[in-house]
Amino acid sequence: MKLPKALEELINSFEQLPGIGPKTAARLTFYLLHTPQEYLDRFGQAVANLKKDTIECSRCHNIASSDPCSICQDDSRNKKIICVVEQPMDLLSIEKTGQFNGLYHVLHGAINPLQSIGPEEINIETLIKRISSSNSIEEIILATNSGMEGEATAMYLRRELAIINQDRKEKFFISRMGQGLPVGADLEYADEATLQQALQGRRNY
Amino acid sequence: MKLPKALEELINSFEQLPGIGPKTAARLTFYLLHTPQEYLDRFGQAVANLKKDTIECSRCHNIASSDPCSICQDDSRNKKIICVVEQPMDLLSIEKTGQFNGLYHVLHGAINPLQSIGPEEINIETLIKRISSSNSIEEIILATNSGMEGEATAMYLRRELAIINQDRKEKFFISRMGQGLPVGADLEYADEATLQQALQGRRNY
Repeated sequence: MKLPKALEELINSFEQLPGIGPKTAARLTFYLLHTPQEYLDRFGQAVANLKKDTIECSRCHNIASSDPCSICQDDSRNKKIICVVEQPMDLLSIEKTGQFNGLYHVLHGAINPLQSIGPEEINIETLIKRISSSNSIEEIILATNSGMEGEATAMYLRRELAIINQDRKEKFFISRMGQGLPVGADLEYADEATLQQALQGRRNY
Repeated sequence: MKLPKALEELINSFEQLPGIGPKTAARLTFYLLHTPQEYLDRFGQAVANLKKDTIECSRCHNIASSDPCSICQDDSRNKKIICVVEQPMDLLSIEKTGQFNGLYHVLHGAINPLQSIGPEEINIETLIKRISSSNSIEEIILATNSGMEGEATAMYLRRELAIINQDRKEKFFISRMGQGLPVGADLEYADEATLQQALQGRRNY
């Protein structure tokens, strides 16, 4: 039996999403057959208009509805601290903590030689320019992921930023997100690398 | 920070799909930001047109592009055997085996008293009518799932079909999909109920 074309197309579209295999794609498609047309219209519109209705902020490269984005425009935020993240979702996670009131810089990736992603392929140049052109910056937080690529990116940035720092009278502080045991973790199940970091990063209590 | 409306809408749409939580919904949405507009257009169209371009076959209730569906229209198929399944996806799985050449009947659900789904809520009445109005039927295969609801549905159908059978000169055969160990399974890890079924269903070898 051949599937109706409408089903096949949607299954194909779903299959291209990360983490969705042929079975899940079919399940989602058949599920949608039982949903109201209204929802399908809204969903379809949202997909088709996703990129038309969003814009990349020219300062921090966050995905936003205006340029500059609402964070860069917000006068109540501390413009002296820039937090560097890999993806817009990372920014979102940090925003959700409510603990950070500075600005961001979204790299849209991490250095990954195996996939031939070098420093030129991600928004590092604009970060360097952004920092070089401002004298008021006090701290850069390197909040790339703590895996291989994120670490490589952080190390690369530390070196580049140190060079900028050399020529400055008012030097900025370069920091990296704290590493150690996640909250709620059992020591027993923690991997060696994490335990090492936790030991090195121990603090007064 | 507030998310751009376009992102938020798509995240909300994804979240309503089964098995997709807020985190996955956001991940899929941000992933789509990096895909070509062409793909987004196709995907959006496929979602919006899903139900417009498909139709439920009035005989077997399969989802199809024509009514009657391609299976019901196919003269090479054996119209004397009807395989009763819960969902169109089940039909698809059986078709993929290439081992079944009869017709289908899709119930679009299973009897589930906890969710107040009774025999009237699924396509049982049309099945009864379909069988009653034909004298040439030789076998009904009950291929509902082997969980609680599927078993309840199969038991209900067996009783109803037996009543029809009483009044017939040429009785039809009622069968249920074989139960036992799935191919490749280890006895050690099989659950008791499956082992019981495998023992009861043992065959000459």
